[in-house]
Amino acid sequence: MHAHSYEAAVAYGPGESLVIEEIVVDPPQKMEVRIKILFTSICHTDLSAWQGRNEAQQAYPRILGHEAAGIVESVGEGVMDLKSGDHVVPIFNGECGHCIYCKSENTNLCEKFRVNPLRSVMVNDGKCRFSTKDGKPIFHFLNTSTFSEYTVLDSACAVKIDPKAPLNKMALLSCCISTGVGAVWNTAKVKPGSSVAVFGLGAVGLAVVEGARAIGASKIIGVDVNPDKLAKGQTIGITDFINPKLIDKPVHEKVNDIIEGGVDYSFECAGNLDVLREAFLSTHDGWGLVVVLGVHPSPRLLPLHPMELFDGRKIVASTFGDFKGKSQLPEFAKTCMHGVVKLDEFITHELPFEKINDAFQLLIEGKSLRCLLHV
Amino acid sequence: MHAHSYEAAVAYGPGESLVIEEIVVDPPQKMEVRIKILFTSICHTDLSAWQGRNEAQQAYPRILGHEAAGIVESVGEGVMDLKSGDHVVPIFNGECGHCIYCKSENTNLCEKFRVNPLRSVMVNDGKCRFSTKDGKPIFHFLNTSTFSEYTVLDSACAVKIDPKAPLNKMALLSCCISTGVGAVWNTAKVKPGSSVAVFGLGAVGLAVVEGARAIGASKIIGVDVNPDKLAKGQTIGITDFINPKLIDKPVHEKVNDIIEGGVDYSFECAGNLDVLREAFLSTHDGWGLVVVLGVHPSPRLLPLHPMELFDGRKIVASTFGDFKGKSQLPEFAKTCMHGVVKLDEFITHELPFEKINDAFQLLIEGKSLRCLLHV
Repeated sequence: MHAHSYEAAVAYGPGESLVIEEIVVDPPQKMEVRIKILFTSICHTDLSAWQGRNEAQQAYPRILGHEAAGIVESVGEGVMDLKSGDHVVPIFNGECGHCIYCKSENTNLCEKFRVNPLRSVMVNDGKCRFSTKDGKPIFHFLNTSTFSEYTVLDSACAVKIDPKAPLNKMALLSCCISTGVGAVWNTAKVKPGSSVAVFGLGAVGLAVVEGARAIGASKIIGVDVNPDKLAKGQTIGITDFINPKLIDKPVHEKVNDIIEGGVDYSFECAGNLDVLREAFLSTHDGWGLVVVLGVHPSPRLLPLHPMELFDGRKIVASTFGDFKGKSQLPEFAKTCMHGVVKLDEFITHELPFEKINDAFQLLIEGKSLRCLLHV
Repeated sequence: MHAHSYEAAVAYGPGESLVIEEIVVDPPQKMEVRIKILFTSICHTDLSAWQGRNEAQQAYPRILGHEAAGIVESVGEGVMDLKSGDHVVPIFNGECGHCIYCKSENTNLCEKFRVNPLRSVMVNDGKCRFSTKDGKPIFHFLNTSTFSEYTVLDSACAVKIDPKAPLNKMALLSCCISTGVGAVWNTAKVKPGSSVAVFGLGAVGLAVVEGARAIGASKIIGVDVNPDKLAKGQTIGITDFINPKLIDKPVHEKVNDIIEGGVDYSFECAGNLDVLREAFLSTHDGWGLVVVLGVHPSPRLLPLHPMELFDGRKIVASTFGDFKGKSQLPEFAKTCMHGVVKLDEFITHELPFEKINDAFQLLIEGKSLRCLLHV
């Protein structure tokens, strides 16, 4: 349990290519675990953090990455639920199990370990567990920092999963699959036979499609400006596709052409407020629910008038699919293993870890859903 | 079943004193009922309609009023559930019982008869059932027009209640009591032992307080700039009072001083967006719910950033307390008769119908909650 040198992809500045280099990874402290990452992939949240769009979130050098799977190498003092050799999935939205939030049935936002893009150090002592060879601290990201051969997590952010589960696919449970499917199953509680519209068919949007298909939605309308998303969407489960660039009316009117009155549920996975408004208006008045999944960096406020809420449409946001990670993800992993949720379509590319900058490029160009990096 | 001359209070222009005069009330048409109004009272919605703040809603001459109780005088063709002599409460948010909305468990917004401040004629034929002595049509208001000795309603907007129920108090079920108590019981589904903040202690806000008290809320914080609301609020059930004018910090911080982390539920009954934002922030992150009851005539959009929704707070609006009027109000009336909900405190003044302009003044000056007019 000493500090060791391992390979990592380090971000030195906004938009600069990640540098693969040897870094020092400290041993896990109290209630922490050190994980050997086997697989990691890139999410749009990594992308925007890498691009440094939000200055308040900048901290360099830094190790990004939050979607991964690996094996526990060692555990710190007091960790009882994990041991060396356990298969784990890191979660950016942790669960301590003891705070008022963890004890509430109504939220998965842990007091200490909830997702926090502004935090760049460990919760325990406000320090970094990573450093450069010459001793300079390297900052953490989203409780996880998975673009590294080894990482240190608080045990609240490491979920033990069935060792029989294929770790390559389980990496998707770190973020996109849990977020998308959970938004359908837990946040919206979509009922079989109901209708759904999904705005933005990236990995999270398509995970929403998969969740809706698995639960038996009767209509799943996919909306994306990228025409390539039609085929992929159909493979996963969309029944209808709208390309906003190819229609001469607002998207919600087109949705109304497909389903009179609108859909029962819509999911905003684009991080765009004009899209959010269309998603809102696409739902049926009286009972429509729009679930916000997109990250909205713009300072603009919600483009909704308060009186519009009196039409009975509701708006909620969903973090990590409202899964309580530590307590509910192991069961969800089994559900995925049993094929209830299909994961294969989400891994479109695979590359060695050293090619991580190429993987970023694939995501930027909209060519990949998830490029799995073999660490 | 002929047209008859009756006394009514007619609005001839925005802010002009209502004119008590003889008008002609046509007999009820198909699926309509003619009601003899015994008691009516004035709500802020009548006040703002009378003041004509929203030009799109202006229509003169017009009979305002939507909170009342009376007796069925005659029924039109096809009306099976009401007959002459039945005790009824008019509802501005009707229930036809047949449309997809009425058949849904998730809304009380009937397709045809939902509240619609822009409509000023009968749904059936787009005509008026009121006219002046010289034959000029007089417009309707909110499906009800209760400032009249007789009025004509669609049967979807008339609820039969137990004849043993005291009609003077039952008038409050037309609007404020159902709206406020229902927002707590039906919309928010407030749980016993939980904490509540109510912003704006008019009749609706105090009905929220009454609903929260009746359901066993442990803390009920009342917020109002009118210091006179403290005593009234305490009589009904507030446990704490905040006068925003007398504190040197935002209201939500003061709420946090009273209950660490904020309340479980807040209710916005002020029709002010800055208040709405305070109500939102006064709720506990993770699970807080703010219910919007206030009417917001300002063109300003919701003062919330989309990312704030990721803190787990929710916002919904509530119309008529999410009661389905025809099917659920008769039972609610019995609940009130049994004293579960106490109505006495809400009728602060009583006047003869002819003094209706004085009653308006009492409401404008914040002196009355409800002034019951004896027709």
